[in-house]
Amino acid sequence: MTNKDARTPASAQNSDREETAEAGKSIGWHKAYVEGTRPDLRVPVRQVHLTNGQSVTLYDTSGPYTDPLVDTDVRRGLAPLRENWITARGDTEEYAGRPVRPEDDGIKHTAPRGGLRNLDAVFPGRPRLPRRGREGRAVTQLAYARQGEITPEMEYVAIRENVAPEVVREEIAAGRAVLPANVNHPETEPMIIGKRFLVKVNANIGNSAVTSSIEEEVEKMTWATRWGADTVMDLSTGRNIHTTREWVLRNSPVPIGTVPLYQALEKVDGRAEELTWEIYKDTVVEQAEQGVDYMTVHAGVRLAYVPLTANRKTGIVSRGGSIMAAWCLAHHRESFLYENFEELCEILAAYDVTYSLGDGLRPGSIADANDEAQFAELRTLGELNTIAKRFNVQTMIEGPGHVPMHKIKENIDLQQEICDEAPFYTLGPLTTDVAPAYDHITSGIGAAMIAWWGTAMLCYVTPKEHLGLPNRDDVKTGVITYKIAAHAADLAKGHPGAQEWDDALSDARFEFRWEDQFNLALDPDTAREFHDETLPAEPAKTAHFCSMCGPKFCSMKISQDIRREHGGSRAEIEEGMAQKSKEFAAAGNRVYLPIAD
Amino acid sequence: MTNKDARTPASAQNSDREETAEAGKSIGWHKAYVEGTRPDLRVPVRQVHLTNGQSVTLYDTSGPYTDPLVDTDVRRGLAPLRENWITARGDTEEYAGRPVRPEDDGIKHTAPRGGLRNLDAVFPGRPRLPRRGREGRAVTQLAYARQGEITPEMEYVAIRENVAPEVVREEIAAGRAVLPANVNHPETEPMIIGKRFLVKVNANIGNSAVTSSIEEEVEKMTWATRWGADTVMDLSTGRNIHTTREWVLRNSPVPIGTVPLYQALEKVDGRAEELTWEIYKDTVVEQAEQGVDYMTVHAGVRLAYVPLTANRKTGIVSRGGSIMAAWCLAHHRESFLYENFEELCEILAAYDVTYSLGDGLRPGSIADANDEAQFAELRTLGELNTIAKRFNVQTMIEGPGHVPMHKIKENIDLQQEICDEAPFYTLGPLTTDVAPAYDHITSGIGAAMIAWWGTAMLCYVTPKEHLGLPNRDDVKTGVITYKIAAHAADLAKGHPGAQEWDDALSDARFEFRWEDQFNLALDPDTAREFHDETLPAEPAKTAHFCSMCGPKFCSMKISQDIRREHGGSRAEIEEGMAQKSKEFAAAGNRVYLPIAD
Repeated sequence: MTNKDARTPASAQNSDREETAEAGKSIGWHKAYVEGTRPDLRVPVRQVHLTNGQSVTLYDTSGPYTDPLVDTDVRRGLAPLRENWITARGDTEEYAGRPVRPEDDGIKHTAPRGGLRNLDAVFPGRPRLPRRGREGRAVTQLAYARQGEITPEMEYVAIRENVAPEVVREEIAAGRAVLPANVNHPETEPMIIGKRFLVKVNANIGNSAVTSSIEEEVEKMTWATRWGADTVMDLSTGRNIHTTREWVLRNSPVPIGTVPLYQALEKVDGRAEELTWEIYKDTVVEQAEQGVDYMTVHAGVRLAYVPLTANRKTGIVSRGGSIMAAWCLAHHRESFLYENFEELCEILAAYDVTYSLGDGLRPGSIADANDEAQFAELRTLGELNTIAKRFNVQTMIEGPGHVPMHKIKENIDLQQEICDEAPFYTLGPLTTDVAPAYDHITSGIGAAMIAWWGTAMLCYVTPKEHLGLPNRDDVKTGVITYKIAAHAADLAKGHPGAQEWDDALSDARFEFRWEDQFNLALDPDTAREFHDETLPAEPAKTAHFCSMCGPKFCSMKISQDIRREHGGSRAEIEEGMAQKSKEFAAAGNRVYLPIAD
Repeated sequence: MTNKDARTPASAQNSDREETAEAGKSIGWHKAYVEGTRPDLRVPVRQVHLTNGQSVTLYDTSGPYTDPLVDTDVRRGLAPLRENWITARGDTEEYAGRPVRPEDDGIKHTAPRGGLRNLDAVFPGRPRLPRRGREGRAVTQLAYARQGEITPEMEYVAIRENVAPEVVREEIAAGRAVLPANVNHPETEPMIIGKRFLVKVNANIGNSAVTSSIEEEVEKMTWATRWGADTVMDLSTGRNIHTTREWVLRNSPVPIGTVPLYQALEKVDGRAEELTWEIYKDTVVEQAEQGVDYMTVHAGVRLAYVPLTANRKTGIVSRGGSIMAAWCLAHHRESFLYENFEELCEILAAYDVTYSLGDGLRPGSIADANDEAQFAELRTLGELNTIAKRFNVQTMIEGPGHVPMHKIKENIDLQQEICDEAPFYTLGPLTTDVAPAYDHITSGIGAAMIAWWGTAMLCYVTPKEHLGLPNRDDVKTGVITYKIAAHAADLAKGHPGAQEWDDALSDARFEFRWEDQFNLALDPDTAREFHDETLPAEPAKTAHFCSMCGPKFCSMKISQDIRREHGGSRAEIEEGMAQKSKEFAAAGNRVYLPIAD
């Protein structure tokens, strides 16, 4: 098992069976499951079938959508895979929950629907009461790990990562990894984020005041996970925030992250100074009850740090950071997030929501990288990490931003030191500011490097960064670019099994197994399309050359000819060539004698 | 002066004046020249005019095509900028030259056109006799530099690089930099390749037996240089090789590189074993007379190294390398390139052709990186580098290939050590094998890193790598990706002035000067297009928000509001905020008291 991606037909639902079946045929892979110690623990993988009879197993994030035997329906939602595991632990309880209010969806001046929970209006699928930890019970994966318990979730990720379950438990217990799994998101297929494991990729979706719809966001989520997104953040800021999130959660096979501050700000009509701890807290509960698995909290933006940004080239570029800075200055008070951090920990612990401690003061330009403001906040994040752990809240730390290559290592080394090796979750970083429209690339460079050096999860950047909202193609480009960065880092870290994937593809390349090359590619569709652009004919798929050099010139063919002429198997060739080499060595090993100068 | 690119209209010729003029207007930049110590030494730059009245000067590779005052015509070729400099030195002479033969263009079984030089048939522009060094005269930039002479070419690049001419001379004299400038390519605008200077990018073009035409290749060359290619390699392998090259050279403002072995192989109808030193040598003279500035020579592929590739995953993937390996094995003899290397040095020295010592045994997969075969060849390249320097031939060394991130540094460190810091010229390297169709990105990651660590020139990789021949869009994507890698490296190396470009763009971003952002972008067209996709209206170009967050939510706007409310200038803001900060510090600097645990 090496790594993942999810090459699939365009349709978001495989109720469209014809397309799936047809695609499956031409694709040369199928969805398979690895069973754990219990029958309801089945870990999905993508099994690629090669034309030489072998097969390669890849990590799979695409969820039930790519299983032709599962009948999915976005209006019904996914099956609650983890429900029995959660209830069997007996440490959580259902309760009435917070009523859903019109303002949760950004609708003002409407008669409230009263105090009754009205989930049906939000999502047509099966109604479910929210669940939380019973009084006095610690229900987070961190708490279980510390108690020495290997949960089904931990076993699941151990199979996915091809490591022993005890390794998973240890890394979580030590705070070096998180397993984001809100008790109210039973649909999620467990995954782990930590430097000891495969590097993960997050894709952001979310409507804004300017554009986009609920359907588009759900579709973007399934699309992103099909190409390999390990988690998805819903950063919606416009209307229908609550409802969009509900649809996304009920249909998401991967953990969902949010920034509750965005929704809280909507509730005060965009006026940062009107935010209160109460409004924020209520929003966190609202989202925790829906099942959000991790939340970005900008509690490190303290009043005293705001002046540190005054001489910056680009000030504060994090939305959450700038909102909190505006609030702090307007009231000339310490951040309410920082002041109420312990209470927030109690809430997150009750649902097993994971902290993603936001870097609200991250640099937005090369000039501002690794400055005083950024590192002041980082030290506070380290302090908050320690507090969160006391409350058994799983915690990761967000990172920059814009950082030139030579400052990246300092950045992650400091984060690892200050935050006791808590998982680093970085945006990029972008290694130059000069290429808007190509920031998936400027940041993909930084992402690969920082992941090699220890970042556990990479937040993708799309070509639209700084310019507009990503569409479907941009989401795909962003995910693929970041899967490349993540896999390059897995290779560089020597992750066990990571290279098998490269080896399988390179073998196929050397042996001119074009179909296998396509099927093993991170993006088989585009690889096939590019090949067919120059040589579309079907025989070209088995041809021992390609359009780059033409039939007379192929270096791989010449290499193969050499092997063929000098023996059948590699061993024979080697012996034959080695023999010649020996004769050559015996003759002095030099025909050309360089003149001593 | 920071770095370069060449944002231009689509047309390859600016005889299409209307388009140029119109584009120039909307683009907000113009072509300017910096004069040297003599009136015929004018270094082109791209002057970007910002809406705040400032301007930014960028390196410019686009040649006379982007100067509306120059009337270019591809049938006539570019003006011979360096001709007077070359003739004034008085150390070269014109001579009859080698007759052009039908087989030079891959045409067999045709009555030869006789012994007369017939350039007119090859290129309609002004006929010119080839030139070479007079008997006993050393006419290379290396020879001049060693003699302490600062040539006009050296002064030209000193202005381009914003360094003292003496620095240029020293780096060339020490062999740490090359200035490729064949005496028969007077059209070239001098540029320098060395780790002390801006990282350069090469774009490959070239027709093959399967596809493409002369016009397309010339057009690809001008297109590539417009987006920032510093050199272009013509890797044609099909028919019309000689004629294509002539057209490319006569119209190229950048140095042109080739692999003479490809054409030599065409002359023996693709049968490697029929190659001879005589055919090869004749081809080198043919190309040197045309004006090729640097040549890849695979003289490091020695007979004894071929068996070292037997156990490789992907054997030999360099075309030149596999041809030489096939020849060596077929004859069971040492490489004729290795055996005749000194004679080859004499030829190259006579025209000031620069060596690009090819890495014929470079790895073609992650599995084969940094292996015995690769490093055995590298040691031989070091040996050949020493010999070339004895003949005053400028020399660079080619590098891999496919290399995972953690093996890149070892690779370049070894090259620098073995080859006395001769400029490294690397293809990528690709950091994973699993993403065909995205190898500009898999390799862009490696390229940025290896350039940071000292590679002087990067050979671009396009999305079509491994799959097909690049078209116009692929060439652009490849060049832009590699300009990003090169500039990211310039930043990381702390190249003087490199960050000015990023700073100018980030200032424009923070101040919502959208037009300036576009004009400063590496690819203004795409940046503008992406922005307009979501917010096409003209007022959006001056709006203080974008479609990502919408009007209520912009973090940059909030940052600016903070500044506005707390003072006018940055200094005032800082003072105001610092004052508040002091009050805060006086109050203990902590509102939230973390509990000791």
